[in-house]
Amino acid sequence: MDFEIPNHYSLLQKERLQYKPEIPDSLLFDKPTKIEFGEETSAAGDIEQIQKQFPKSFGRKVAHIVEAEKFETQRPFKVGVVFSGGPAPGGHNVIVGVFHFFKKLNPESKIIGFLDGLGGVINNKNREIVEKDIQLSFNQGGFDLLGTSREKISTDEDFEKSYETLKSHELDGLVVIGGDDAIFIAIPKTIDGDIRSKYLEMTAGFDTVCKVYSEFIGNIMRDALSAKKYYHFIRVMGRSSSHIALECSLKTHPNYVLIGEDIEKQKLRFVELIEQLTKFVIDRFNAGKSYGVIIIPEGLIQHIHTFRGLISKIDEIYEKNPKQDKWTYEEILQKLKDDEVSAKLFSEIPKPIAQTLMTDRDPFGHVRVSKIETGKLLKWSIRDKLSHEESQKNITNTSKKFVFECMTHYFGYEGRCSLPSNFDATYCYALGITAARLILHEQTGMMAVVNNLSDETKNWKALGLPLTDLLHMKENSEKPELKIFGVDVNGAPFKELQTKLENWRIVDHYRCSGPMQFGGDSKDWKPKVLLLDKNKK
Amino acid sequence: MDFEIPNHYSLLQKERLQYKPEIPDSLLFDKPTKIEFGEETSAAGDIEQIQKQFPKSFGRKVAHIVEAEKFETQRPFKVGVVFSGGPAPGGHNVIVGVFHFFKKLNPESKIIGFLDGLGGVINNKNREIVEKDIQLSFNQGGFDLLGTSREKISTDEDFEKSYETLKSHELDGLVVIGGDDAIFIAIPKTIDGDIRSKYLEMTAGFDTVCKVYSEFIGNIMRDALSAKKYYHFIRVMGRSSSHIALECSLKTHPNYVLIGEDIEKQKLRFVELIEQLTKFVIDRFNAGKSYGVIIIPEGLIQHIHTFRGLISKIDEIYEKNPKQDKWTYEEILQKLKDDEVSAKLFSEIPKPIAQTLMTDRDPFGHVRVSKIETGKLLKWSIRDKLSHEESQKNITNTSKKFVFECMTHYFGYEGRCSLPSNFDATYCYALGITAARLILHEQTGMMAVVNNLSDETKNWKALGLPLTDLLHMKENSEKPELKIFGVDVNGAPFKELQTKLENWRIVDHYRCSGPMQFGGDSKDWKPKVLLLDKNKK
Repeated sequence: MDFEIPNHYSLLQKERLQYKPEIPDSLLFDKPTKIEFGEETSAAGDIEQIQKQFPKSFGRKVAHIVEAEKFETQRPFKVGVVFSGGPAPGGHNVIVGVFHFFKKLNPESKIIGFLDGLGGVINNKNREIVEKDIQLSFNQGGFDLLGTSREKISTDEDFEKSYETLKSHELDGLVVIGGDDAIFIAIPKTIDGDIRSKYLEMTAGFDTVCKVYSEFIGNIMRDALSAKKYYHFIRVMGRSSSHIALECSLKTHPNYVLIGEDIEKQKLRFVELIEQLTKFVIDRFNAGKSYGVIIIPEGLIQHIHTFRGLISKIDEIYEKNPKQDKWTYEEILQKLKDDEVSAKLFSEIPKPIAQTLMTDRDPFGHVRVSKIETGKLLKWSIRDKLSHEESQKNITNTSKKFVFECMTHYFGYEGRCSLPSNFDATYCYALGITAARLILHEQTGMMAVVNNLSDETKNWKALGLPLTDLLHMKENSEKPELKIFGVDVNGAPFKELQTKLENWRIVDHYRCSGPMQFGGDSKDWKPKVLLLDKNKK
Repeated sequence: MDFEIPNHYSLLQKERLQYKPEIPDSLLFDKPTKIEFGEETSAAGDIEQIQKQFPKSFGRKVAHIVEAEKFETQRPFKVGVVFSGGPAPGGHNVIVGVFHFFKKLNPESKIIGFLDGLGGVINNKNREIVEKDIQLSFNQGGFDLLGTSREKISTDEDFEKSYETLKSHELDGLVVIGGDDAIFIAIPKTIDGDIRSKYLEMTAGFDTVCKVYSEFIGNIMRDALSAKKYYHFIRVMGRSSSHIALECSLKTHPNYVLIGEDIEKQKLRFVELIEQLTKFVIDRFNAGKSYGVIIIPEGLIQHIHTFRGLISKIDEIYEKNPKQDKWTYEEILQKLKDDEVSAKLFSEIPKPIAQTLMTDRDPFGHVRVSKIETGKLLKWSIRDKLSHEESQKNITNTSKKFVFECMTHYFGYEGRCSLPSNFDATYCYALGITAARLILHEQTGMMAVVNNLSDETKNWKALGLPLTDLLHMKENSEKPELKIFGVDVNGAPFKELQTKLENWRIVDHYRCSGPMQFGGDSKDWKPKVLLLDKNKK
């Protein structure tokens, strides 16, 4: 380094600054590339509507990045970068990839960073990214080089102002790490791992977050096994999909996992779920165990048939009565009268949860699913069920007193800004170089994609995927959005979990994957779901 | 290995099985040792009473383990080991140390493990520990080889039964990992780091736990800096002392830390604390920041003058009225009437906290301090304070809207069973060998101690410290207990923190120490408090 590293950097942060992610052969800086167009694309859903919304860009072909004789141009480029949405490990490496590519193409190139999310584009809040920023951000966690926010470019005015910004800088392109608008090159960034297509195998950040959560889960498992007195209900991030819960389960071997998509497919009612869990607790007790570990996805309850019904009923009550923002428990119960199932469920769930359903609403008036303490909901409901006589008659182990003590945990913000794993550091760096090459080749409205990820890094392939291919229409809305893909209950990873779970239910096979390592045998682990998906093919 | 490693072991677990902790020169297996008695010891407090309770063992001399010409005996030994209390990283290595020492002394030696804590000794639940157990437990987290519990040998019957157990096995000694009774060799195991003496520098497990929590804290800090919209109030384990909060703060550089012992020394009242925190939030906002990170020790509120008064008042109400176990809020308020400060505080704290004070009581009828959600208590109280006009007039930054959004976190069970750090693995292995040698040299009622820890491992020194030296009388009781040492507010580590905190308050110096590494530059880090304490000397 030609300058001092700030002394608040930890030893490990400094060490990671030195890590040089391998670059896939096809993306090596000195290799000229060109675009080779492949298959025509479509949309992820609501094809006709998406086509209508995007008459010009719909159906474009996949843009494979392939070797060429020479660079079409080596002129200086001026390119913008911006973070959008929640942080994901590896985000900084995307910027490093863009920077390294263009500076090596032509040292006169400039990279402009927009600050604090897309608002920075709208309001032209920016600063030029210089060599020092890059050297100090390489392989580091967080989105703090530029900051981020959930702001969107949504109104016509936003669009105009953003366009003005881009024009005023005479930008050749804009790379949005996490965006889904069609005016730039997007990066498939989400820890939830739920943006997919046949071209897009994995989102950036997912690997690291699962490794961090699995460390915690493994530690708690070992605690459960040491003290033998608690159930641990562990909720992990993943608002609409259960990919994180699935990956963490494959890594750590819990006794039970609730995969939302599976529960949804089975049309499981809440009471049935509680019955199953109660049986699980009793079965373990009959085998002599008063402890256990269950993994729960953040957004579980919206996958439960009856619960989703209740939530939408309550949402409806609020929507129909926009002026009344405070309701009493009794008023809601009264309003639910015409829907027997919802009314019964509402009256049966623990009061604090009912309270959350009534009071914790997002700016659109909807229940904030993430705020519902699902772990506690399950714990209280199981405890209640266990107190019934019919449950108790299933307890056949009389050698000790039956107890059900349960601790709940929630892992969210503890993982999103971790130092990226070697895999995410490498993957994100490659995504940055891909984004840069797409701009070089004058592509826009594309998602930068790197695939063949289960193979060695040198064989990874890069392409641009027209964003329209990933869109569908938002439910009850005129707006398109990236389609979220939940866990495929017919896919190899879920099948693998199902087979294993039978063995893990009573006999413990807890696995402690331990803290993520940057050296040693485990340093280059890839996500299990990625490898299992691959094997299937 | 001469057998297969169970396939639920992760790659990292397997790798750690191969780690060979360095052994201090004086403890090398082939080196004969003897005891050299040093200074007479005393007690950690209530000296007269301790002397009365332990007329024979009080005042014994420190037993330094020093080189000798030859082993006094190389006969086979039969020794018991048992875990007691909460798990701490490195516990298994103590057993490995005991096992390796005696098996190398004489392969006919036997190590008997008692199951699930001291109850296993009382009820003679045991199994012999064999080579395979040892090979599969080396450098692994948790206490699961034998299990643990909080059971104590407390009644006369317990003592008799325990004695019977030891006699029936003809044990030469019993090593208790975490105990404080005087019939055996104890190991200074507590993640809280609060058992100290001039001979005992550090407890086992503290280093690892602080590294694990610091990983999480660093990740959250990076998130705070990326999203710039939340305060994070992070509560870390440490029931009676703030050592963990101190060490984690020195590692991660938060904007604010509440060290219980300092607050206690200042006799800070709850309202004053909230005033200081509110000022801190406003000062940061005036500097343009609506985010920040505060570290809070688990047991904070018992260090707050007025709060401790309130708690003991409530405890008193319950004690004086043993038959009434349910009280209404109003009844408690009425009962508090004669103590104006407590009554006012009780009426001012948020209702859910008041509820916890009233309902969550331990088997002795006392408030469970650990159950009080201190983070939420502070958050609600600050929010309330901020809504007052007098607070608002201090807001001088008019460039944006003032907001105070706050997330609370609690790190407890996520760390206690981690894979031990290199330091804890090495330290605990040495403690095991020390315990074994104390038994060889016919010592009992001793704490195994290894010190000089800030020096290179080869120079570490081992000794036996008469347990009485660490005891004082339990408050309002006839029973002795290990004295808990809080953070020394005149000590070098706290002074260092105080100096640094001034710089961290407004300008962020967040440090991400990252996941604990077993390779690379950071693999052999020692606790900062240990090194700072050393420098002072």
